[in-house]
Amino acid sequence: MSPLFLELFAPVVALCGLLYSLVFWNAVKSADGGTPAMQKVAKAISTGARAFIKRQYRTITILSIVVGVGMFLIYGITAKDGNGWNHGLQVSIAFLLGCLLSGLSGIVSMVVATKANLKTAASSKHGLNAALQMSLRGGTVSAIVITALSLLGISGLYLFYRFGMGMEAVNIPKLIVGYGFGASFVALFAQLGGGIYTKAADVGADLVGKIEAGIPEDDPRNPAVVADLVGDNVGDCAGRGADLFESISAENIGAMILGVALVPYFGIKGILFPLVLRSIGLVAAIIGVYTVKAKKGDSAMKAMTRGFWVTAVLTTIALYFCSHYMLTVSSNAVVTGGTRLENIFPEMTQNGFSSPTTSLWFFLAGLVGILTAVAFVYITDYYTGKQFRPVKAIAQASTTGHATNIISGTAIGMESTALSVITVCAALFLSYWFGSQTGLPTGGLYGTAVATMGMLAVVGYVLAMDMFGPITDNAGGIVEMSKAPEDMRLVTDELDATGNTTKALTKGYAVGSAALAAFLLFSAYMEEAHVTSVDLSNVHVFVGAFLGAMVVFFFTSLTIRAVGKAAGVIVEEVRRQFKAKSIMDGKDEPDYAACVDIATKSALKEMILPGIVAVAAPIAIGLLLGKEAVAGLLMVGTIVGVLMACYLNNAGGAWDNAKKYIESGAFGGKRSPAHQAAVTGDTVGDPFKDTAGPSLHVLIKLFSTLTLALATLFM
Amino acid sequence: MSPLFLELFAPVVALCGLLYSLVFWNAVKSADGGTPAMQKVAKAISTGARAFIKRQYRTITILSIVVGVGMFLIYGITAKDGNGWNHGLQVSIAFLLGCLLSGLSGIVSMVVATKANLKTAASSKHGLNAALQMSLRGGTVSAIVITALSLLGISGLYLFYRFGMGMEAVNIPKLIVGYGFGASFVALFAQLGGGIYTKAADVGADLVGKIEAGIPEDDPRNPAVVADLVGDNVGDCAGRGADLFESISAENIGAMILGVALVPYFGIKGILFPLVLRSIGLVAAIIGVYTVKAKKGDSAMKAMTRGFWVTAVLTTIALYFCSHYMLTVSSNAVVTGGTRLENIFPEMTQNGFSSPTTSLWFFLAGLVGILTAVAFVYITDYYTGKQFRPVKAIAQASTTGHATNIISGTAIGMESTALSVITVCAALFLSYWFGSQTGLPTGGLYGTAVATMGMLAVVGYVLAMDMFGPITDNAGGIVEMSKAPEDMRLVTDELDATGNTTKALTKGYAVGSAALAAFLLFSAYMEEAHVTSVDLSNVHVFVGAFLGAMVVFFFTSLTIRAVGKAAGVIVEEVRRQFKAKSIMDGKDEPDYAACVDIATKSALKEMILPGIVAVAAPIAIGLLLGKEAVAGLLMVGTIVGVLMACYLNNAGGAWDNAKKYIESGAFGGKRSPAHQAAVTGDTVGDPFKDTAGPSLHVLIKLFSTLTLALATLFM
Repeated sequence: MSPLFLELFAPVVALCGLLYSLVFWNAVKSADGGTPAMQKVAKAISTGARAFIKRQYRTITILSIVVGVGMFLIYGITAKDGNGWNHGLQVSIAFLLGCLLSGLSGIVSMVVATKANLKTAASSKHGLNAALQMSLRGGTVSAIVITALSLLGISGLYLFYRFGMGMEAVNIPKLIVGYGFGASFVALFAQLGGGIYTKAADVGADLVGKIEAGIPEDDPRNPAVVADLVGDNVGDCAGRGADLFESISAENIGAMILGVALVPYFGIKGILFPLVLRSIGLVAAIIGVYTVKAKKGDSAMKAMTRGFWVTAVLTTIALYFCSHYMLTVSSNAVVTGGTRLENIFPEMTQNGFSSPTTSLWFFLAGLVGILTAVAFVYITDYYTGKQFRPVKAIAQASTTGHATNIISGTAIGMESTALSVITVCAALFLSYWFGSQTGLPTGGLYGTAVATMGMLAVVGYVLAMDMFGPITDNAGGIVEMSKAPEDMRLVTDELDATGNTTKALTKGYAVGSAALAAFLLFSAYMEEAHVTSVDLSNVHVFVGAFLGAMVVFFFTSLTIRAVGKAAGVIVEEVRRQFKAKSIMDGKDEPDYAACVDIATKSALKEMILPGIVAVAAPIAIGLLLGKEAVAGLLMVGTIVGVLMACYLNNAGGAWDNAKKYIESGAFGGKRSPAHQAAVTGDTVGDPFKDTAGPSLHVLIKLFSTLTLALATLFM
Repeated sequence: MSPLFLELFAPVVALCGLLYSLVFWNAVKSADGGTPAMQKVAKAISTGARAFIKRQYRTITILSIVVGVGMFLIYGITAKDGNGWNHGLQVSIAFLLGCLLSGLSGIVSMVVATKANLKTAASSKHGLNAALQMSLRGGTVSAIVITALSLLGISGLYLFYRFGMGMEAVNIPKLIVGYGFGASFVALFAQLGGGIYTKAADVGADLVGKIEAGIPEDDPRNPAVVADLVGDNVGDCAGRGADLFESISAENIGAMILGVALVPYFGIKGILFPLVLRSIGLVAAIIGVYTVKAKKGDSAMKAMTRGFWVTAVLTTIALYFCSHYMLTVSSNAVVTGGTRLENIFPEMTQNGFSSPTTSLWFFLAGLVGILTAVAFVYITDYYTGKQFRPVKAIAQASTTGHATNIISGTAIGMESTALSVITVCAALFLSYWFGSQTGLPTGGLYGTAVATMGMLAVVGYVLAMDMFGPITDNAGGIVEMSKAPEDMRLVTDELDATGNTTKALTKGYAVGSAALAAFLLFSAYMEEAHVTSVDLSNVHVFVGAFLGAMVVFFFTSLTIRAVGKAAGVIVEEVRRQFKAKSIMDGKDEPDYAACVDIATKSALKEMILPGIVAVAAPIAIGLLLGKEAVAGLLMVGTIVGVLMACYLNNAGGAWDNAKKYIESGAFGGKRSPAHQAAVTGDTVGDPFKDTAGPSLHVLIKLFSTLTLALATLFM
């Protein structure tokens, strides 16, 4: 295959993917639009979501421009050589492109979800399979758009520098590090704002609705109910969309940087490998979606899992062939532009490399990554599934009261970190070992990079499963609020339960991939900043590491507190409406829009402080203590961030399902004292799993992409 | 001063201190023994505590002998040179001596506390000052014994090797590393067993007593009430006694090892400095205790704080003179045995050192340590005191229910890590910088060691304040259960509240000193294991670090769960007694001993698993991944352990005081919905602050002392 073919492969596949997403989009758009009552609810949700996104992205746009211009100026002013302004321009443009596409991913996810929720609600009258297909197709549109945009952005920049500016391929990866930072920067605020909004609305609606007024969830008399439904779209859809967009981008860029070191052996194939594998993964995900069908007697979850396995197997096959064709050592490897390798790297030696073995070792490393993805799905399922010990233990502990429910959930959440971390460590170790067996100088490191690519190769399907969650959640709300028939509710209830599971799985997968990708991103930073060792016995590094770990705790505290504060404002508004109008007896209609507006304002206010802490901490430590201290912050901050996110996600998920387990009749069922205690746990778990945990995923990545983009500043 | 004078200084002062403690002990023993009703309660507590300690130390003795013999065999078998058996014997004997004295410290603390509680209860009829003096004198006995035993053990070993075996002083510190491991090993099980016992009894008594039966705390009808009072002695006294014993020991040994590197400049004074400063600190603490008097209108806390400041100022003066006489560079410094320095270190150069400046720099480093101790007292006070924002915010959040109380406390606890960590980092940085200014080759490192010594120099007084807590807590229980007059209860109530504050302060101080000492202990390990760098970008080190951080989360989970399990067993027993007998109407007397027995059994059972995890994890990683990976585990495990302990301690303390704040009348006062929510938070906080948090202090130190003692195994 010619280098040009490989250079064009990813952007062409991504473009085709984007076009193909129109097929799914069309299927969603052209479907039955439901009853007028349903449409009215959907309209309210959609209006609220758009209003939030509009204001949120206005704020984010301003912040992005400030940071982009700031970087340009700092690079220009502080540069020691004459190239500072030029370099600053490159980083800033890449940054702003990353911001733009990350934001676009979030917006598209939200728009699709607010359309697909109505269609899913409407199609639920045709039974489970129809509704499942509709919601999964909606989720797939977003999944394709996110993956394709990420690929297009990176390969677009690559092609621009390669052919527009006529640069050497090996010099390009380090020019696009700003792109990853931009993606993370927008994802941080998208996830923070959306996460705070969704849980503030949820907690606020529950506190006054369920507890004070005694009305059920999604009751149309609750003024905060629409805000709650809007929250699913802006938090779970737009937030997680941006989150996974930056995960893919960051890991692609990091792997490309590491690929540069292997150019003597693979030519530019080592640089392009991540892009090619990812684009094939996108195709595999689309095929996987087509295999999802809920046959008679099948649960929705079983059908979804089947699709996941199809995607995983297809990806494995693709991995094998990609490794074989791209990661085989060739002494005639040609750097684009026709330069013979020997001319660029005269010191290169060929002795001792057996080509087919090399690609096989890397294939094994990639396989480790795919298996890690599978392992995380099962670990999360064990810790948050109703059929296993952890959730049952929490339900049991609820019988002795609120406090024992909380103690038990805390213990389970912290316990869950053990299996997750051991899995990641084993994956790191194995893939490093496989990589080292190639005998290539940075083979071990590239092995971990290939493992990360393997793990993230199935991201398309995982994203589709994830986006499916909020769509079905909303569909359930629409069915409930429009007082649709009972059999439709049964369908959406099953989908909603499945959606809760897939959302939990995605969180496990996201944090696992963040952990695995971390090592590769550290290495990319060290490459960029010319750091040769991160020695914890150096007092600068140790202090950086200590502060990095602390920032994770502090950031978690800020996000959790933000939910509490924003929820308090909503509680007051709901109480005010209940007092001012005759809502409870059905005479007056509640003012949904007022709640949406207040939730929007307070969420946007509360997202600023944690966001600033996340961005300012690494910069401050870098400027004060130097580039090694930043590496310490980055690495130990990541370790602690992964553990904390695991704990928060799994504790939250387990509390949620312990409540559902009791509601299904165990330990006295609904309205028993055990149920009340379980509701407390579920409420505590809400900001844990839907605000703090997901925001930590982004924080981890932001540390990496920010330090990568600003590496030269700390030198 | 001759070297011999300095070598004998610490053991002689320690022996004098031990003798002097008899003065305090006599004052306690000869005091009025109270009414027969009081004596009966005190007898039941004392019998229960002794029974627990007896069985606990039987288990600990077996475990210690197994580990001691195991180390001897492993050293002997695996040694590459012929010196293995000899080395094994030295390590094992030091280990067992550390175990013995650590255990003795715990037992003495418990015996003193179970005597002083009755005397304090009896003296409360003479007013606040009398009761305060009595309880503080009781606490001082334990404080002196713990500090003096630690000093005697180390200086005893030193003198044995020096004069019994005729060794060079520079070779001795590394022979006594086993002592620190022994101290930590016993402290781990003492704190785990005691911590699980105390909170299991507390939670168990509350769940059935307060919540199900509706009787007040310390009501004599509750069968678990004596177990609850016993718990204060075995958890807070015996457990924390052993905890601080090992803190002092570990830091002394670590500093002596670092002192060896400075022998060319200070002679053996650098090695003996920690012992000399610590013994003067002991004298300062005794003087401090004598200044504590509650004058009319003074609160007990104000009187205690005055004593703390007296001790701190005296210690500062002592630090100045010790630095001046011992840390001044002298070209005639003589290594014991009369060898001229130049003969041992011919490469030594004298140029550029200004003697008086050197000692001044180290004095400043030590001052940083003393100020850090003061800062931690104030930080803890801010986060757990009723008059400040954090506790008030939790109380406010309790008005919207159980869940918001938990969310708010979690956020506050995590927030509190920020100030603590910034303080430690600033102290590390400053003391390192001061030390580097001396121009000595390892001056920076020794600067952090001197800072740690400064922080721990006031340990005697802090220990006395800490031990005061459980004594007054028990005194309150005795007064309550013996139905003593109201004015006596008022006195013990004030002392009890003060005791809660001092217990919280000690925990803050303990975790702060653990954090500060960590860097010095790492360095000692690197010295011993010949590790030159702990490079996180090495995949072995990274995996070790990741697993170390995970072990902290997993260990926390195990300790929290252990409390839940043991409490469950007690709940069942109390329910059984309420059913089987007519206790509630006062006809039958509850069977206190049965509850004590069951609590003992289940606490001892539950302490084994977390204990084994703590000891096995570093050994397994060392053997599998090597000495650098252990260093990674040690450093990052310590960082995460400090953060987690800070979080757990401060969240627990804040929840506790938020409840008390509401009980004092805020937000509806006792029995309001806010109060119920606050009780939930307090119960959740119990295992956080009294089991998991303190056990984590020990875990952090255990990581250091264990790796130090087994360093040669991992090489």
